[in-house]
Amino acid sequence: MKELPLAKVYALIEPGPVVLLSTARKGRSNVMTMSWHMMVEFEPPLIACVVSNANYSFAALQATRECVIAIPSRDIAEKVVAVGNCSGSDTDKFQAFGLTPLPAEAVGAPLIAECFANLECKFADTRLLSKYNLVILEVVKAWIDPKQKAPKTIHHHGYGTFVVDGETIKLKSRMR
Amino acid sequence: MKELPLAKVYALIEPGPVVLLSTARKGRSNVMTMSWHMMVEFEPPLIACVVSNANYSFAALQATRECVIAIPSRDIAEKVVAVGNCSGSDTDKFQAFGLTPLPAEAVGAPLIAECFANLECKFADTRLLSKYNLVILEVVKAWIDPKQKAPKTIHHHGYGTFVVDGETIKLKSRMR
Repeated sequence: MKELPLAKVYALIEPGPVVLLSTARKGRSNVMTMSWHMMVEFEPPLIACVVSNANYSFAALQATRECVIAIPSRDIAEKVVAVGNCSGSDTDKFQAFGLTPLPAEAVGAPLIAECFANLECKFADTRLLSKYNLVILEVVKAWIDPKQKAPKTIHHHGYGTFVVDGETIKLKSRMR
Repeated sequence: MKELPLAKVYALIEPGPVVLLSTARKGRSNVMTMSWHMMVEFEPPLIACVVSNANYSFAALQATRECVIAIPSRDIAEKVVAVGNCSGSDTDKFQAFGLTPLPAEAVGAPLIAECFANLECKFADTRLLSKYNLVILEVVKAWIDPKQKAPKTIHHHGYGTFVVDGETIKLKSRMR
């Protein structure tokens, strides 16, 4: 994993890929699948996300106030869905699905070796947490796997239907 | 435009497409391009979005507390970028780019005829508006254009690079 400048993080999240969210608590790591997230600020990068309190990860997230957002490519889409189909309450998902936890630098939650990008995140704002399960995270460290060239991400359209990244087009834009 | 059940709205926003946001104030309509949005609740559908206060639309949005989120397909990507490249302060963007405003039912902002989906939205929570320009919208009415079959959306990767929807895959998922 190679360090990614924080100013480039938004370009990974803004397109809306399905991501994995890892947590660690009391020596136990867990991972969940997530699609409800968005950028809130470029730099330092702020990401809002919604983690249902029905998820086993919610308690660890709330207790530790940190996590890793890992972005998987289409190549491991089957694992990503398998992660979403079970609960950390009775499954060690890293072991069950052959995902490799790597130590992060600034947070206790693990990076995921198979993902092409990993974002170390800490709680930045919890005002909407109790009402909507919405938290704003600050990305404090970002990593990219240079061996994964032009990874295609997946986007969830509901009930297991995913659209994979297709053609790339470039249009003259003033938008960052 | 045909009415879309509110329970199906999330499947349009969750994949992270570039959208248009229309507003109307004092008889004047405007439209901007937006990529920072996410689902917050299934039903009634809540959508969080970030609208920079540098955007001309921000004042109209804040004054009227309503808008329309319209989802364009790849077919009008050039118009979507053109909308993002100029300001409503000196341009009637509907006229300039050949977009057709249609009256909405529950809000003053117009639907956009060329978009395959249109969501009428009202402010639901503004607690994070002053700090992050983040507002939570409730979708009160949703419309879909049945003539646009399997529309492909675009996803922004920064600086005018967009990825178009590619292959659709179906995986056995328990996730809604």
